[in-house]
Amino acid sequence: MDAKSETKSFPMKGGDDESSYVNNSSLQRKSVDLSKEIIEEAISKNLSIENPKTFWIADLGCSVGSNTLVAVRNIVEAADHKYKSQPEFQVFFNDHASNDFNTLFLSLPSERRYFAAGVPGSFYTRLFPRSSLHIVYSSTALHWLSQVPKEVVDINSSAWNKGRIHYTDAPNEVLQAYSAQYVTDMEAFLLARAHEVVCGGLMFLVIPGVIDGTRDSQTDGGFFDVLGSCLAKMAKMGMVEEAKVDSFNLPVYHTSPKEVIESVEKNGYFTIERLEKMYSTGISIDHIQIFSDHLRAGLEVIIKQHFGFSKSDLDILFDMYTKRLVDSFPTLAKAAEKSLHMFFVLKRKNITIAH
Amino acid sequence: MDAKSETKSFPMKGGDDESSYVNNSSLQRKSVDLSKEIIEEAISKNLSIENPKTFWIADLGCSVGSNTLVAVRNIVEAADHKYKSQPEFQVFFNDHASNDFNTLFLSLPSERRYFAAGVPGSFYTRLFPRSSLHIVYSSTALHWLSQVPKEVVDINSSAWNKGRIHYTDAPNEVLQAYSAQYVTDMEAFLLARAHEVVCGGLMFLVIPGVIDGTRDSQTDGGFFDVLGSCLAKMAKMGMVEEAKVDSFNLPVYHTSPKEVIESVEKNGYFTIERLEKMYSTGISIDHIQIFSDHLRAGLEVIIKQHFGFSKSDLDILFDMYTKRLVDSFPTLAKAAEKSLHMFFVLKRKNITIAH
Repeated sequence: MDAKSETKSFPMKGGDDESSYVNNSSLQRKSVDLSKEIIEEAISKNLSIENPKTFWIADLGCSVGSNTLVAVRNIVEAADHKYKSQPEFQVFFNDHASNDFNTLFLSLPSERRYFAAGVPGSFYTRLFPRSSLHIVYSSTALHWLSQVPKEVVDINSSAWNKGRIHYTDAPNEVLQAYSAQYVTDMEAFLLARAHEVVCGGLMFLVIPGVIDGTRDSQTDGGFFDVLGSCLAKMAKMGMVEEAKVDSFNLPVYHTSPKEVIESVEKNGYFTIERLEKMYSTGISIDHIQIFSDHLRAGLEVIIKQHFGFSKSDLDILFDMYTKRLVDSFPTLAKAAEKSLHMFFVLKRKNITIAH
Repeated sequence: MDAKSETKSFPMKGGDDESSYVNNSSLQRKSVDLSKEIIEEAISKNLSIENPKTFWIADLGCSVGSNTLVAVRNIVEAADHKYKSQPEFQVFFNDHASNDFNTLFLSLPSERRYFAAGVPGSFYTRLFPRSSLHIVYSSTALHWLSQVPKEVVDINSSAWNKGRIHYTDAPNEVLQAYSAQYVTDMEAFLLARAHEVVCGGLMFLVIPGVIDGTRDSQTDGGFFDVLGSCLAKMAKMGMVEEAKVDSFNLPVYHTSPKEVIESVEKNGYFTIERLEKMYSTGISIDHIQIFSDHLRAGLEVIIKQHFGFSKSDLDILFDMYTKRLVDSFPTLAKAAEKSLHMFFVLKRKNITIAH
């Protein structure tokens, strides 16, 4: 049994001030709304649990946002509707130990239909006892890798990613290093869940990614490139050391439907009941500021950790970022058309696993 | 099903600065150490669970201290030793939603033998699904009432507790109001646990209280009286409004073995397997400062909430408190001899409960 906590963590920013994640997750919200119908249908048709008295649900990588509470309510209501056994529900909200659990707990609705618990730790490790979960939900969290691939910050490696903060437009070795880290992480994720999810139970995975066969340079990773160019500019202005920029890489990977399917098949403990691809509805230039705020909410903590930035440093960075996004908008909008959200419904096969 | 969160909360002070609970729980520590043997014996002899694959444990009112982790480790090790089925363990750490769960989560040992979860809410309400817990542990938490009895802050009530912050040396109506609140709370606690604990499961309850037949004025509530007199003095000095002092009462009740036994018997779902009375080993005048720091750690948050005190106000209050403790020491030391910690081992009877 491995109950170790993570070695790396990339918490979302807590609290409720204007740049926090709570107030900037409208992009996530869209996929949550779209997913309600998928959740209801899957629980009605695919979930194979016989009249449970108690129902355990885990929300992995929940952050502190209110979106997660909407999805959880949808799951509980759908399961409640399905079973005449009137089960009681316990919902486990998981994120890194450094996540702002206090904000999460205080935002729980008082009239909820479930008992709530917080579970600290990386979802790339075991978090729950064997066969203890009926439904796992994870939305826009699996694009976070467990760590930045070691090679891309190793000055002696051919995958050293000098001058960039991501794999877009980087040498092929950089993309390969990211891709290998993703495969390792997804393997760990699926194996941990194979232990934890009961046979007949479901996993709902909403994963941001890119359409099959997309070259990395065409994807919305370009938005990270622009951020990288802003950091490089700050280095030139003497506001930050160049070496600091070189050693900064985002632990994010945009997978594709094909890659996820390969991982699930290799793992072997889950069937894919459904894959829904939700495409970007296009980004309007009017929404650049919202997009920039959104990215800031997601990345602020790790940027602060790495660069030791003050609030005003962050303001400078993201003001510059917003302006450059406007300039690069036509190119980026075209690239964004290649991005999508995958909604996977996986079902735990009826085969035991050696513990 | 009632999953409402508490209406009142009395969080221990979080963080790790010098006056925080983490650094001042040596008094609790003693009872934890004494209890190891009781835990081991009870799990070995009294726990009636057939070869569990998964083992659920709840620590109710855990605060953020390290003592709780020692007790939990003792429970896990004892259960692990008992069963050849090599169960996996999940431990739920419960306290009010305003408890510092982040400090708690970050202090969890990385090499622990259990999966950890935090559960926000008052233990006077339902916190877990029915029949989901094998062992409940709660140490030095049940003396906190769910709220200050309404009558004692009602100026029109005969139980109005003007000029005092507790029931010691108060009119009989005040003690009765506290006692009635305790009975109501304990009833709610035991009924909630009767739903949650599996038949054959155990509850370990460490409850600070007083020996049977002790008049309230003879108990260690006298330590609160001294604090009340300090607040009255601050009112006279104009540092705080007199009405504020009048409306301040501690939501604490020191029960007795007899009262706990009556509550358990009235509830009817648990047998008392063991009651161990751990008496005070006496308080030395050399330890007055430690005692004062300890009380401050426990009460600082609610005093701050009520009076809006700054750190320097609190320093003044507790400096005065320490000095007055020294003056009153002979009387208080004698009264403290009437106090004890009860260690109850309760076992869930094999009878079902209507849900």
